[in-house]
Amino acid sequence: MPYFDAASSAPLHPVARQALLAALDEGWADPSRLYREGRRARLLLDAAREAAAEAVGCRPDELVFTPSGTRAVHDGIAGALAGRRRAGRHLIVSAVEHSSVLHAAAAHEADGGTVAEVPVDRTGRVAPGAYAAALREAPGGVALACLQSANHEVGTLQPVAEAAEECAAADVPLLVDAAQSLGWGPTEGNWSLLTASAHKWGGPAGVGLLAVRKGVRFRTVQPADERESGRSPGFENLPAIVAAAASLRAVRAEAAAEAERLRGLVDRIRARVPELVPDAEVVGDPERRLPHLVTFSCLYVDGEALLHELDRAGFSVSSGSSCTSSTLTPSHVLKAMGVLSEGNVRVSLPRGTAGADVERFLEALPGVVAGVRERLGAPRPSGAAAGPAREPQPEPEPELVVDSLGKRCPIPVIELAKVIGEVPVGGVVTVLSDDEAARLDIPAWCEMRGQSYEGERPAERGVAYRVRRRA
Amino acid sequence: MPYFDAASSAPLHPVARQALLAALDEGWADPSRLYREGRRARLLLDAAREAAAEAVGCRPDELVFTPSGTRAVHDGIAGALAGRRRAGRHLIVSAVEHSSVLHAAAAHEADGGTVAEVPVDRTGRVAPGAYAAALREAPGGVALACLQSANHEVGTLQPVAEAAEECAAADVPLLVDAAQSLGWGPTEGNWSLLTASAHKWGGPAGVGLLAVRKGVRFRTVQPADERESGRSPGFENLPAIVAAAASLRAVRAEAAAEAERLRGLVDRIRARVPELVPDAEVVGDPERRLPHLVTFSCLYVDGEALLHELDRAGFSVSSGSSCTSSTLTPSHVLKAMGVLSEGNVRVSLPRGTAGADVERFLEALPGVVAGVRERLGAPRPSGAAAGPAREPQPEPEPELVVDSLGKRCPIPVIELAKVIGEVPVGGVVTVLSDDEAARLDIPAWCEMRGQSYEGERPAERGVAYRVRRRA
Repeated sequence: MPYFDAASSAPLHPVARQALLAALDEGWADPSRLYREGRRARLLLDAAREAAAEAVGCRPDELVFTPSGTRAVHDGIAGALAGRRRAGRHLIVSAVEHSSVLHAAAAHEADGGTVAEVPVDRTGRVAPGAYAAALREAPGGVALACLQSANHEVGTLQPVAEAAEECAAADVPLLVDAAQSLGWGPTEGNWSLLTASAHKWGGPAGVGLLAVRKGVRFRTVQPADERESGRSPGFENLPAIVAAAASLRAVRAEAAAEAERLRGLVDRIRARVPELVPDAEVVGDPERRLPHLVTFSCLYVDGEALLHELDRAGFSVSSGSSCTSSTLTPSHVLKAMGVLSEGNVRVSLPRGTAGADVERFLEALPGVVAGVRERLGAPRPSGAAAGPAREPQPEPEPELVVDSLGKRCPIPVIELAKVIGEVPVGGVVTVLSDDEAARLDIPAWCEMRGQSYEGERPAERGVAYRVRRRA
Repeated sequence: MPYFDAASSAPLHPVARQALLAALDEGWADPSRLYREGRRARLLLDAAREAAAEAVGCRPDELVFTPSGTRAVHDGIAGALAGRRRAGRHLIVSAVEHSSVLHAAAAHEADGGTVAEVPVDRTGRVAPGAYAAALREAPGGVALACLQSANHEVGTLQPVAEAAEECAAADVPLLVDAAQSLGWGPTEGNWSLLTASAHKWGGPAGVGLLAVRKGVRFRTVQPADERESGRSPGFENLPAIVAAAASLRAVRAEAAAEAERLRGLVDRIRARVPELVPDAEVVGDPERRLPHLVTFSCLYVDGEALLHELDRAGFSVSSGSSCTSSTLTPSHVLKAMGVLSEGNVRVSLPRGTAGADVERFLEALPGVVAGVRERLGAPRPSGAAAGPAREPQPEPEPELVVDSLGKRCPIPVIELAKVIGEVPVGGVVTVLSDDEAARLDIPAWCEMRGQSYEGERPAERGVAYRVRRRA
């Protein structure tokens, strides 16, 4: 049963399992104690720190273990902001960071700090020079900038080395969230702080990494204790730490070959999905990307139904669609990129994924999508709804209003697609919708279908989105 | 090789190991995902929460898993203080709480809050009515009170149910740190919040518990996410959580019988140590105590040397002596109790400890203590230094000053003991010392040896401690 959601959590690497078992026997005691069990635990902890630091590319005394990647991000951002409090209270993050970074930024704002979001292009990538611009435009002293090494939803690699140069020129530390990339290789460039999460590379849950370069001002804000250089309180989760370090070494040893192999499988998905599934859009940078991750969206598809049907067909994937989240807002990443969010599927291949499983996925996908579309009453694929294949309408209206109030993604877009052929070329369809996803998906649909998006305005209820028929 | 430091970290219970292994295979996926691996992880998480809640004595939706007992304490105290911010900013803790509670209290003070410490008697126990008194004497509105269920250094049980009544009468929530006792049984009384740590009961590292009763005001202060009811951010450490819950059930099933057995072994240590080791004092409540833990102190002994020699002899124990800690201050617990801290040894027996191992310890201890004393040049045991066995001094000085500046515990007390016989009964010895431990150990020595402690005053360097010879 293929599991294609490694970006959420990777299955445990065999080396991690083996190291964990060994450390359960050898590493359960308190490494700060002086007796033999404690000394043995300390040796294991020191060795794990050395191995992990080598993989990160920092000194062992610059690296601490945290209880998760999220806690590494929270504690790392809070500590860097507190350490640089005198320099200022402005924080710069990209618009497509992991939610842990955005939550830390929100907490900073709630505490009186200011936050700026650096935009991305349609591939999800921060532009070269964008951090320099954000630094120039900062309303006050900048305490910290954050940039992920690679995006967790679309796989696009970020120009971390360039951003680090831009930050260094302004004497501002850069924190890099390397959660998605650390298993594939070290993070390039002159970063100041780095965070990562072991269960993303096949290590166990319960271990994050926080590296703080010597010379970077850092002050722990939470209550601290004597553990982990005072930067991560609480009894060390030693067996998991040992397993995390061992598995990081192991996945790195296999990284080059496995990256090439998975890159080929992802290339195949990127090429085949648009051929096999009408009205599907593959998003993210096709070249500068993580080797194992691809995201696409399917028009006229309910993300939750799609995930459910793919699960029934034996495929575990994830989605940034609003239809699958409890908040009903689409993924902030897709939103920042300005791409379609409906029917969104993220495929992230774990190490060792068989090519045959990818082929089976490609075989199953068209039928699954078609089935979901059929149940939703979606228009016929490939632009048939508005295209020349459609029979001419008897008396086309110059303007038409579709009331989609109270209906959720993807219904507003489906209703738009159904009526666009009823206005003449040059005519306008106005969609009334109170679904947050419509703001993203109606313009995205227009771009995909060669129609012209004319903008939105508040309506008595919800928002009115105007679309002019061009094709 | 007997390991007698269960109170620091207990060896992994076989059930924990077994459950952890099973959950590594079944529980590595993200429990918030909708596909089968995620649903399976969610089932495991829900079952673990139900089992742990039953053992705690709360509803499953009142319990969250944290990355450690320390994080449970830090996050629990911070959340309760924030939730009750309108009620006031005063925090009440006992003087003998675990350092994680005291660190959280210090952070609260640094943030502008106030903290009161409730004193303990010579057994380490909070007096009945002490919390009521602290509530009456509070300088402003009380946000929260904290009391451990049992002391981690001396094993004394605290009157938690009474303190909870006193707090409830004042409408103040009580947080109980049950880290040392939860494996032995639920915490009695009407507590509001409860914290615990899995590796203290034989569960794995990496799991703490935080229970917050319905109706208790609580506001997460750190950046949160959607996990663990928004009270503990970061990917759940599911295999360890499953192992924690399973082992808690397992140790509880064995608790009554094993408590009785270990209680007998500890009774034996409590009785034999003062008989076997001259000038040793067993501290803590002899009856109202944890079944497996006993602490004693030995005059004229360097705690670090003692631990080292016991380790060489094959026994792993811990110490609250200043001589073994990097801060050079003696245990705050022993200090609050006003008992001797030098040559301090805590013995905490893991489940399954063999009686024969305890006997071997009792056989080895006298020789180890005597050896350490000999190397330090300590006075002969049993009051020989100042007692009638000593030859009369030719010309006793009415007052004598001992310069112990720059010397560390236990040297100042050893030097005092060596010269006390040189002043006549009624004469005074003044010890000059800049060692923090002397403040505790000189009065404790006086009490043990029937001498009269006359108090301290600042000296040109260090502190002058005055002792009047009575015997």
